Amino acid sequence: MAHANSSGALELHSRLKGKISIAVKFPVKDRQDLALIYTPGVAEPSREIARDKKLVYKYTMKPNTVAVVSDGSAVLGLGNIGAEAALPVMEGKCVLFKQLAGIDAFPICIRSQEPDGIIETVKNISPVFGGINLEDIAAPKCFYIEDRLKRELDIPVIHDDQHGSAVVVLAGLINALKATGRDKEDAKIVMNGAGAAGTATAKLLVKYGFRHIKMADRNGAIYPGRKEGINEFKEEMARITNPEGKKGDLNELLEGADVFIGLSGPGILHAENVRRMRNPIVFALANPVPEIMPDEARKGGAVITATGRSDYPNQVNNSLAFPGLFRGTLDAKAKIINDEMKIAAAEALAGLVKPTKERILIENLDRRIVPAIAKAVREAAIRTGAA
Amino acid sequence: MAHANSSGALELHSRLKGKISIAVKFPVKDRQDLALIYTPGVAEPSREIARDKKLVYKYTMKPNTVAVVSDGSAVLGLGNIGAEAALPVMEGKCVLFKQLAGIDAFPICIRSQEPDGIIETVKNISPVFGGINLEDIAAPKCFYIEDRLKRELDIPVIHDDQHGSAVVVLAGLINALKATGRDKEDAKIVMNGAGAAGTATAKLLVKYGFRHIKMADRNGAIYPGRKEGINEFKEEMARITNPEGKKGDLNELLEGADVFIGLSGPGILHAENVRRMRNPIVFALANPVPEIMPDEARKGGAVITATGRSDYPNQVNNSLAFPGLFRGTLDAKAKIINDEMKIAAAEALAGLVKPTKERILIENLDRRIVPAIAKAVREAAIRTGAA
Repeated sequence: MAHANSSGALELHSRLKGKISIAVKFPVKDRQDLALIYTPGVAEPSREIARDKKLVYKYTMKPNTVAVVSDGSAVLGLGNIGAEAALPVMEGKCVLFKQLAGIDAFPICIRSQEPDGIIETVKNISPVFGGINLEDIAAPKCFYIEDRLKRELDIPVIHDDQHGSAVVVLAGLINALKATGRDKEDAKIVMNGAGAAGTATAKLLVKYGFRHIKMADRNGAIYPGRKEGINEFKEEMARITNPEGKKGDLNELLEGADVFIGLSGPGILHAENVRRMRNPIVFALANPVPEIMPDEARKGGAVITATGRSDYPNQVNNSLAFPGLFRGTLDAKAKIINDEMKIAAAEALAGLVKPTKERILIENLDRRIVPAIAKAVREAAIRTGAA
Repeated sequence: MAHANSSGALELHSRLKGKISIAVKFPVKDRQDLALIYTPGVAEPSREIARDKKLVYKYTMKPNTVAVVSDGSAVLGLGNIGAEAALPVMEGKCVLFKQLAGIDAFPICIRSQEPDGIIETVKNISPVFGGINLEDIAAPKCFYIEDRLKRELDIPVIHDDQHGSAVVVLAGLINALKATGRDKEDAKIVMNGAGAAGTATAKLLVKYGFRHIKMADRNGAIYPGRKEGINEFKEEMARITNPEGKKGDLNELLEGADVFIGLSGPGILHAENVRRMRNPIVFALANPVPEIMPDEARKGGAVITATGRSDYPNQVNNSLAFPGLFRGTLDAKAKIINDEMKIAAAEALAGLVKPTKERILIENLDRRIVPAIAKAVREAAIRTGAA
């Protein structure tokens, strides 16, 4: 598989001057049209909505419109580059929302990097939107922001770096275990990285029924009572994972493990670490440079490898999940995106391939992905009362 | 001229579910395309903008994107109906921006009605936008909000209810005086209504060179030292208009006046009031019911009449001004919209008809309007250093 070529990206962006634009659904040809969609006709839907606010879903763009919100504090591999520099990324996300799922997404790049400023801004602009997709906001503030917005808004809110990643990792893991004849109750998992993606993934795996998860960060194992480099979110991880309270560094944790999941940084894993595992499944998802390159993981005995890159097999990429997840959520008119909906998305995504050691995930852009996930998510939303 | 029929507006809005949507300018066909507009290629424009924030105008949608911002506190004739109910109106405005001027406008309906909450929200979302169009925000808070945003943002900000109205009234007035052989230095003008539109119109007329303007509100003439129903904005009006400090009610002010401009409420003027004027020019712009119907104004001797309605000649409507005004502003890359740009817009708009007593303004939707205004505004921006 050739590594996708990104040369020409700068020239393309300069030529496009924006990857999305506004389209008019009802062009005004004459005064009669103007009277229907502007004064005086527009007063009728406005009056109806003033009478019953729920009718905003009947007469406006709200039910199919999503805000892609970022403060630019944790963009791609670029770090804290700010709101303006985040805009090309958010426009790209909006392209995918529209093209893959028919959702009208608009970028909201926020100048404030204060959690409360971001929260107030999103709450203030929420009347126009049917859902909020938080994007590229740094941990740990992303947890606080998402949590408050979920509680204080009556539209679904999701931080894609957390939950989009969690859904795709779970899908890949379901198929990797199936391809190697293991089950979730027994599989020993070691995760490295306790940022946005790592934290959300660990929670979803626990919810799904994995029992033997150990997490590590740059200070080694996360266990109850650890003092160094800890915060309330890592304390929660210590409570819900690592039931034996194991300590030690990443290499020690890997002894006898079935699965390594890296949501951390480049090059921290080596063949000799992988060799400690049994029939190793190695998800090295740091981007663009993984925790270990697939070739080296194979040298260490890995039987299945996945990365975040398009130039190796089994690309674990959020774009496999978020379009269908939001499509199903909006279709169900769900107020929240709960764990059952995420798990339904992961199972639907996993179900799109017959898993082998070589292939555990479908390639992105495949047209079957969004309908399959959307249907499963919609059904889960209705079943669990999220709608 | 038949009154435009708005029946069916509710059904149409229900069918459309949004009058605008998002369009993708560069559809993703394969992984190669994805690599160009999303990861990894999108990192290139992001890195460039992080290096030099001004490049957001080169690589993103910002230069052609405008926010249509409202808190829904003063919508059409409907009053304070809130953010959700304002959305159909703001969507309609976005349709006009796009269709008439090629500008990508997006509705931002703000839940907070507190001036500082609105200001902070608009500042926070400003990175995505090349300009801010404030809409249907109640007076007097609209003055404070616009003033602070103009000072604190580096993109053009305009409250259309104020300045769009002022531009179209000035254009109509230029032609009404020309058609009746009067000049601005001598014309005696009485304005009724000191809200958003009235205040901005009076300021622009003064700036343009009108010397004899008197303003009234429900408490009668506005003059220096008046105590009843006064605020800082009306005090400013008292300073810049009414040089003789005239007191009295509207009827008294009208004695010998050339022009009545109503930006107030329905039916407050009668034929006998008009009869006190000389060769009366009557702009009765309250909508949908004017201060006086054109037929009654004619009975009082009016030689020229204008209203805000589409079913009478000489419709004074903001949509004549704002698309071209913003097009020219964005084309010039102007940081502000100054009085010279507004006056250039008014003169260009006036220049589109050869004025007669029957016809002082071009009909809206005419294709010549936006290019003519945009060119004049762009030139004025460059001439005055706004760009």
